[in-house]
Amino acid sequence: MKEYKILQIKESVFEDNNKQADLLREQLKEDKIFLLNLMSSPGAGKTTTLTRTIELLKDKLRIGVMEADIDSDVDAKTISETGVKVIQLHTGGMCHLDADMTKQGLEGLEAEGTDLVILENVGNLVCPAEFDTGSVKNAMILSVPEGDDKPLKYPLMFSICDVLLVNKIDVMPYFNFNLQACIDRVTKLNPNIKVIPVCAKTGEGIEEFADWLYNETKTWQSV
Amino acid sequence: MKEYKILQIKESVFEDNNKQADLLREQLKEDKIFLLNLMSSPGAGKTTTLTRTIELLKDKLRIGVMEADIDSDVDAKTISETGVKVIQLHTGGMCHLDADMTKQGLEGLEAEGTDLVILENVGNLVCPAEFDTGSVKNAMILSVPEGDDKPLKYPLMFSICDVLLVNKIDVMPYFNFNLQACIDRVTKLNPNIKVIPVCAKTGEGIEEFADWLYNETKTWQSV
Repeated sequence: MKEYKILQIKESVFEDNNKQADLLREQLKEDKIFLLNLMSSPGAGKTTTLTRTIELLKDKLRIGVMEADIDSDVDAKTISETGVKVIQLHTGGMCHLDADMTKQGLEGLEAEGTDLVILENVGNLVCPAEFDTGSVKNAMILSVPEGDDKPLKYPLMFSICDVLLVNKIDVMPYFNFNLQACIDRVTKLNPNIKVIPVCAKTGEGIEEFADWLYNETKTWQSV
Repeated sequence: MKEYKILQIKESVFEDNNKQADLLREQLKEDKIFLLNLMSSPGAGKTTTLTRTIELLKDKLRIGVMEADIDSDVDAKTISETGVKVIQLHTGGMCHLDADMTKQGLEGLEAEGTDLVILENVGNLVCPAEFDTGSVKNAMILSVPEGDDKPLKYPLMFSICDVLLVNKIDVMPYFNFNLQACIDRVTKLNPNIKVIPVCAKTGEGIEEFADWLYNETKTWQSV
């Protein structure tokens, strides 16, 4: 038996996404729900990173997860095994989520009563960067096999994120990836970004990310 | 001194992209130019694969390359070192190329007189699949670190390609990637697709791709 819903998201009718995003953030503030928007290329390790992070936080926070994909429910299935609330969102071919689509997801998830909701956005470094989902913070994952030149090619994505996880550091010896060059390129675009090297497969570095997420959630709920 | 131009592409004004794509293919037929549209996620290895392929074909075919990116010219610089004609296209934030944008690129490249032009599309598994560029054939690269579940999540991309290169097979032992499961998923979507496992870093498998490309080019020019 499936432990999660699959929701077909409808295209938004609102012209001003930024306004809808601000309204959603106000509502989340009132409901004391911290929403994180997690973005990356396809296959950078969003779901594995989430699984590890949930393991560290699920006894401290009530967590919900929204898995957005063009098709399939493999990620919702994986997340459902952690025991947290999860919903699979199907975007109907759409390459990103905007604030209204995120709101549809939160309603489908029945997010009330959670402390932290994580939106796993569509795997894409271009379009999701252009649409404010209404999240409180944005995080992204760049994986070592993708290369250290990605901040040069997709600057907007790196500019709008609060945290960058550099994932798959265990395979660094097999790839030509210069971590310092990557960090220099990212901080030039975004001086305030927090960079955390991680290996979601082994769990290395995930504690630092989980601590950041816990503190941000508590701050959001208290102020 | 730079050996290549950087062209800022303009947004298309045509409503019917499919019609523009057909018109462009007719023109390419007349000019005896074979256009390949190469797509993948960011960092799957498009440029390295191209460099290897060009090494094998540059004495047999007159080749041109169009490198499309949101920003930077790192790929055009890499390709220019092979000695073939190359242009860097900047999409101004746009997540894909359509037929009119491809035509602008061909004009900027001054493609007349070439046998084979390769368009390296924006790194993205969603949007480029939705727009016919006017290419004669479509190829895509899926890299091992991205995972064998990608055909489930991005089915349209795998459905519209004539060739799939499974790249970075040298790191297969470090990733949980089932090649046969991947091939089964892809051929279920697209029974006629040709799948070639390659390692662009070492050159393994590239000869088979280069042979396919050479034969397709010659067939296109002769019929």
